[in-house]
Amino acid sequence: MDVIEALRNRRSIRKFTNDPVSNDDLKKILEAGRWAPSGLNNQPWRFLIITSDDQRKKLIEGHTEYAHVVRSANVLIAVFLDKESKYNHVKDCQGAGACIQNMLLAIHGLGLGGVWLGEIINQEEDVHKVLGTDKANLELMAVIALGHPDASGSSSRKDLSELMIEPLGD
Amino acid sequence: MDVIEALRNRRSIRKFTNDPVSNDDLKKILEAGRWAPSGLNNQPWRFLIITSDDQRKKLIEGHTEYAHVVRSANVLIAVFLDKESKYNHVKDCQGAGACIQNMLLAIHGLGLGGVWLGEIINQEEDVHKVLGTDKANLELMAVIALGHPDASGSSSRKDLSELMIEPLGD
Repeated sequence: MDVIEALRNRRSIRKFTNDPVSNDDLKKILEAGRWAPSGLNNQPWRFLIITSDDQRKKLIEGHTEYAHVVRSANVLIAVFLDKESKYNHVKDCQGAGACIQNMLLAIHGLGLGGVWLGEIINQEEDVHKVLGTDKANLELMAVIALGHPDASGSSSRKDLSELMIEPLGD
Repeated sequence: MDVIEALRNRRSIRKFTNDPVSNDDLKKILEAGRWAPSGLNNQPWRFLIITSDDQRKKLIEGHTEYAHVVRSANVLIAVFLDKESKYNHVKDCQGAGACIQNMLLAIHGLGLGGVWLGEIINQEEDVHKVLGTDKANLELMAVIALGHPDASGSSSRKDLSELMIEPLGD
């Protein structure tokens, strides 16, 4: 898939078939995240693959807003910042965003679907408990839910003119 | 260019030829930024194109670390967050990172080169003065420098195994 087309047509996918994501595809997705840019090339991102049904169930207890997505997804990738590798909060969060976006674009490019679960970071303490990760070392940035798409995505954007501080010339 | 290849092979480019970036390409780059994902789809990013030589000169006064890049670039895109559109600092900074990365990937996909100038946000006050933008409304996220590449980029990344909190199965 052409990169310009992928950037334009990727949408969040929240419903998946039961088909498994191959390990080969999963590696390609993580590789895409690995190659994201970061300030001072500090690469603060760390990944944890969640596949256990028990962890999945515990993650959504009391959190109905993303429960159907977590239940439906074939794979969940938890993305953290390694606190020791951080150097600037804004730039490290931006870097995590670039890394997550790289993975979402790879997912789309591979014919899979995925969605960036951002609200889950409001439950960071619970997530650490369920995953057995340590809040002292790792800061939760997002969870990516992915699988083979069983629905198409749709969303809109502001016109470019609304985003330009000064009008773009012809 | 294939998206998986683009994700893998994009590198920061810091030296450019004198060839101009076409307005058509510039629009494609901004379009790619426009289609980035954001929390609650709030699309907090705003763009300002810097082409004036006078602004360029003032931007690098006293900041030798990125002076050669700013001088060499054909176009500079200042990326801000619209403070009124923000809803969560971490998620909005992540969204800006996704938006910047989308533009860097489009730049690469179009056969151009670009680099994410992150350190410039340490001079946010000066940048606002030079650009005539208002700190009360806009928070500087980065400046993207771009043009036709006059050098190849090179950088390395940690092994995927170093980024995995638990080893990836086969």
